[in-house]
Amino acid sequence: MSKSSNLLDQAVEALSSLPGVGRKSALRLALNMLEWPTDKVDRFVQDLAAFRAGIGKCTNCGFMADEAQCEICKDGKRKQELLCVVEGIRDVLAIENTNHYFGRYHILGGVISPIDGVRPEDLSIDALLDRIKKEGVKEVILAIRSSIEGETTCFYLGRLLQPLGVTLSVISRGVSFGSELEYTDEITLGRSIEGRVPYEPNMMTS
Amino acid sequence: MSKSSNLLDQAVEALSSLPGVGRKSALRLALNMLEWPTDKVDRFVQDLAAFRAGIGKCTNCGFMADEAQCEICKDGKRKQELLCVVEGIRDVLAIENTNHYFGRYHILGGVISPIDGVRPEDLSIDALLDRIKKEGVKEVILAIRSSIEGETTCFYLGRLLQPLGVTLSVISRGVSFGSELEYTDEITLGRSIEGRVPYEPNMMTS
Repeated sequence: MSKSSNLLDQAVEALSSLPGVGRKSALRLALNMLEWPTDKVDRFVQDLAAFRAGIGKCTNCGFMADEAQCEICKDGKRKQELLCVVEGIRDVLAIENTNHYFGRYHILGGVISPIDGVRPEDLSIDALLDRIKKEGVKEVILAIRSSIEGETTCFYLGRLLQPLGVTLSVISRGVSFGSELEYTDEITLGRSIEGRVPYEPNMMTS
Repeated sequence: MSKSSNLLDQAVEALSSLPGVGRKSALRLALNMLEWPTDKVDRFVQDLAAFRAGIGKCTNCGFMADEAQCEICKDGKRKQELLCVVEGIRDVLAIENTNHYFGRYHILGGVISPIDGVRPEDLSIDALLDRIKKEGVKEVILAIRSSIEGETTCFYLGRLLQPLGVTLSVISRGVSFGSELEYTDEITLGRSIEGRVPYEPNMMTS
């Protein structure tokens, strides 16, 4: 490749830094861009630059925001007394996509992990406690992954939040919708038996 | 998505204009870029902008070039008397990757296709004739796809080049290396029988 063009090499190098894009795909993308009208390339580059330069963190919850506060925090229709604590931005997007949650969020920025050197003070926990007091939060849902670190974090948060008198819950764990028991891992299946819920034949299942 | 951030939406829109990148992948790429250090994003954007703004066509052969002439045309070690005629940039890259060709190239910019409104005068054919005369080309290889349009183009070029006294050839067609006869299409297999080559048991196969 290097014999053809330095500019191409640099573009391929840049594109291959995207996740999941190897050098061969990057070359394909670059050659495709070569056929774009220049104004399309300009817009492409400007949009990405503006995105990275302009996007900030909501000062309230830590989600992506074009202004000081994100659209979710600004939305008056969202229940202010219901708060969902998540690890990161992707979790908010995932929960938003379900259309099953109408409260607000608080992004921790990770989970407590001594191995990775993440201590409680590295996470947005003080801000969480502040918000619960200031915003009159009545219920906190912990939507944190189930792993050693995730459960440590839930335990740590639980101990801090219990004295505040909020209703505390974690998202339910169990066998995924539509997945076969045969192929479900033992831990998930074991917990879904332990955490079985009463069944009424006429119950709404949503 | 639209509720979260206009800047994100624009970035997702931009990234999903890349070939093979859908909106879901574009979102994944954008969220990943959000974690990049800003100088990495700056470099990414600059490299792509420089690539598209700076890269031009070699005035000689039509291949990508950072300067007036491409690296292949400038390379004195390349045989000047051997010219390979191809449709586009990708074909040059493909042939270069074989390491089996040490002449120069001439890019037509397409094939004659009345259906798509591509006439002979839309292709870089006059420049090809000029080069053959000026550069003392002795052999021309037509490396053009085998399709109705490709063969029309080869026929048209053949008629123009024959009077110039150059040795004319087309790349050989046949069953791909390693592919099974059972799964080869009839046209390819039929032509590979028609175009069979003498076999000597001790012949080098390269």
